[in-house]
Amino acid sequence: MNLRERSLALHKKARGKIEVRGKVPIENTDDLGLAYTPGVAEVCREIVSDGDLAYEYTGKGNLVGIVSDGSAVLGLGDVGPKAALPVMEGKALLFKALAGVDAIPLCVGTKSVEDIVSFVRWMEPTLGAVNLEDISAPRCFEIEERLKEVLAIPVFHDDQHGTAVVVLAALINGLKVVGKEMPRVKVVVCGAGAAGVATANLLLDAGFPRVILCDSRGVVYPGREEGMNQFKEKVCSRGNPQGKRGSLEEALEGADVFIGLSRGNMLDRRTVKRMGEKAIVLALANPVPEIFPEEAFSGGAAVVGTGRSDYHNQVNNVLAFPGIFKGALECRARYINGAMKLAAAAAIAELVGPDLSPNCIIPHPLDARVVPAVSRAVVRAAEKS
Amino acid sequence: MNLRERSLALHKKARGKIEVRGKVPIENTDDLGLAYTPGVAEVCREIVSDGDLAYEYTGKGNLVGIVSDGSAVLGLGDVGPKAALPVMEGKALLFKALAGVDAIPLCVGTKSVEDIVSFVRWMEPTLGAVNLEDISAPRCFEIEERLKEVLAIPVFHDDQHGTAVVVLAALINGLKVVGKEMPRVKVVVCGAGAAGVATANLLLDAGFPRVILCDSRGVVYPGREEGMNQFKEKVCSRGNPQGKRGSLEEALEGADVFIGLSRGNMLDRRTVKRMGEKAIVLALANPVPEIFPEEAFSGGAAVVGTGRSDYHNQVNNVLAFPGIFKGALECRARYINGAMKLAAAAAIAELVGPDLSPNCIIPHPLDARVVPAVSRAVVRAAEKS
Repeated sequence: MNLRERSLALHKKARGKIEVRGKVPIENTDDLGLAYTPGVAEVCREIVSDGDLAYEYTGKGNLVGIVSDGSAVLGLGDVGPKAALPVMEGKALLFKALAGVDAIPLCVGTKSVEDIVSFVRWMEPTLGAVNLEDISAPRCFEIEERLKEVLAIPVFHDDQHGTAVVVLAALINGLKVVGKEMPRVKVVVCGAGAAGVATANLLLDAGFPRVILCDSRGVVYPGREEGMNQFKEKVCSRGNPQGKRGSLEEALEGADVFIGLSRGNMLDRRTVKRMGEKAIVLALANPVPEIFPEEAFSGGAAVVGTGRSDYHNQVNNVLAFPGIFKGALECRARYINGAMKLAAAAAIAELVGPDLSPNCIIPHPLDARVVPAVSRAVVRAAEKS
Repeated sequence: MNLRERSLALHKKARGKIEVRGKVPIENTDDLGLAYTPGVAEVCREIVSDGDLAYEYTGKGNLVGIVSDGSAVLGLGDVGPKAALPVMEGKALLFKALAGVDAIPLCVGTKSVEDIVSFVRWMEPTLGAVNLEDISAPRCFEIEERLKEVLAIPVFHDDQHGTAVVVLAALINGLKVVGKEMPRVKVVVCGAGAAGVATANLLLDAGFPRVILCDSRGVVYPGREEGMNQFKEKVCSRGNPQGKRGSLEEALEGADVFIGLSRGNMLDRRTVKRMGEKAIVLALANPVPEIFPEEAFSGGAAVVGTGRSDYHNQVNNVLAFPGIFKGALECRARYINGAMKLAAAAAIAELVGPDLSPNCIIPHPLDARVVPAVSRAVVRAAEKS
């Protein structure tokens, strides 16, 4: 069977990938009286007296809601909430398998910013944290910003920040491999959707001085008239303050890093040749990267990463979100802030250690050391900030 | 340790009673490629081509959302959504343990009818069915009615219909014990909240000719001016069409059945004495019944049931909801209609069989035969209707 057939068979066999399971027995009347009525009333009374006790007596503190409208599913686009369910179940599966975190898909039948914000607010009492997923830009930015203002639990749009964290981790090590230093490096981020904007922002937070964002119209610059929104405007005023203009190809002239978060097969070797010496190319579009590694190398790239598991240097969000949420839940953080994201990236990068090489700038997605290291780093950063 | 201490210890030990578990392995890159990216995209594509395939490839078809605002938690009242979590987790635990159905608590931070209706609509793509729980009357009626109109999945307010089904089951057998026939029987339902109104309606559907509903103001009659709502109005125009008035005590004069769905200790033996010969008393307030069995018997009752596990004849919703949902999910019913509820009650009653006696009019809540029998009956009734 090919991948398609095997994947369909796997999903059909068990009707989905996750289930809800009891953690306490229900075998006799005594069990029933403790876990349900009348005993449960005593637990409710405790929580009435102190709402925070929900973290002690219920699963709230370990529960992530994976909220999506299915409008920007990786590689597929706007498939709607029902067709997004398999992705969210997959994510819930990873949350549990890798980090012991319970997560439930919340695929919602509305695309309105207002509605999604209301929905998540109303769900807040049940959840320990919110993972926004596969919501198209620029709505995802507004939804996240508004939720951050109103929620007392952390909210994290993984397509944005999970991607940004893993890209930063890869770059930290990639620069070591090519012997360059952050303050002298010019980065071009191709794709100004959720991932592109957030990655550009995090790289700027991390200390990269020049981060040029490009979209289908070319370089994004302050005051550009077409295809802009406040989020692009903000990031280009940071990363391209001189307001340079031009095409993606022009932006790549002499650049040290290309980060592709756009669509497959849109970069060729001739353009890679225009980049600086020892260029780093992270072509992360899925499943077809902006440029395949063979071609990028033939254009002179020194280090290449993709989102795929069949090449070296798989830059995959799985390295970030399980540990970040685990850490944030563990210390009951109210936010997942910049310091926590930078700490997560540094922790991921550090794990590569002596294996560091052009073909190994990032740990394997299922490396068991990753989640504990990331969650520890996140807890430490949260406590400091 | 007493019940309170044991229940708190149980809940604290595992931080809640349910967890999310994977049903497929995530051990290597191949697993990841099948369950998550890139393989999952194939599953999404299938569902894009036919939305119903979400029932084949995801957990949607076996997933119940337990929606509550915590405004009418059994025996506690309006405790709010966070303090209602232990009850909803307990319910989810029972769903899985008894019926193999996955259920998730959705405790919402809003009491507005409009908001809760919107919330559930937005959740619909993710769910196979909706269990409304512990929402106070009369909002619960309106929420359920409106959701029935707009949802393509079944919605069932367990406090109403689960209770009604189990009460009807108990009465079917109770009447056999006392040798009375439904068409000659006068029933008084005390309590005009969610459970009282729904029980009165279902008993009328089942063929009981006289069902007098009482609330704190006494008998509910058509056109009464105080303390009315459209739902009380409707049920009393069916069960009390002659518009009889009076106190609860007056209504019970010569009555064959008392059904208490109100509050503890509000009925005494003198009033039971005014009831007809061989009266049936179901005093279902929790944890303190309207009248304790000893006193009801001393007033001349022939059959007594309560909601408690420490007396005979425990009338407990656990007998109904797991099997009803299991059946409705199995046949992908759009509604849980009257015929399905009547069939469920008949199936529960039938299981008592030769054990029938004044002390055994209903199966034990954890009787393993109940869920299969109820779900089969529900499926058959659904297919017919």
